[in-house]
Amino acid sequence: MPDYLARIDVMLKPLVNDPQGLAVRDGLHTLGFDGVRMVRVGKRIEVTVSADSQPAAETSVRAMCEQLLANQVIEQFAFAVAEVSAAAR
Amino acid sequence: MPDYLARIDVMLKPLVNDPQGLAVRDGLHTLGFDGVRMVRVGKRIEVTVSADSQPAAETSVRAMCEQLLANQVIEQFAFAVAEVSAAAR
Repeated sequence: MPDYLARIDVMLKPLVNDPQGLAVRDGLHTLGFDGVRMVRVGKRIEVTVSADSQPAAETSVRAMCEQLLANQVIEQFAFAVAEVSAAAR
Repeated sequence: MPDYLARIDVMLKPLVNDPQGLAVRDGLHTLGFDGVRMVRVGKRIEVTVSADSQPAAETSVRAMCEQLLANQVIEQFAFAVAEVSAAAR
């Protein structure tokens, strides 16, 4: 079975307070980056998964996000799946 | 000045041990996702910045990554900058 690399972004929903993002924004202001308006901090998760096909890999990754990787009460996720070429393995 | 949205990914370098990724991998295995081979967990940071131009925004974001957002001893970063349309503001 080929390997697929899923790049998953898990971010807090827009209306959820993001204290980590506010702290980073204030840190950037302190460093002199006055143009910074907003910062949101989330997670980037890269999963290498073995699957029969690209659709099978995408179905599996979606289930992973829903069951473990994202808390859908406060977070939203997006992902892209690409086959890992034999050369890159 | 227009606003630009920078999407920044900060990941541990490939050879750096990633205990959080290993824990997520084991959790996925426990949930029955047997095809999972490797998991890496990093940060996704979205910065909205006001700048004169796209190149100015990119220069500023690169400096933010180097000075605060990424620890280049163990982490690598990549980013993409796009202008925020007036409609999306």
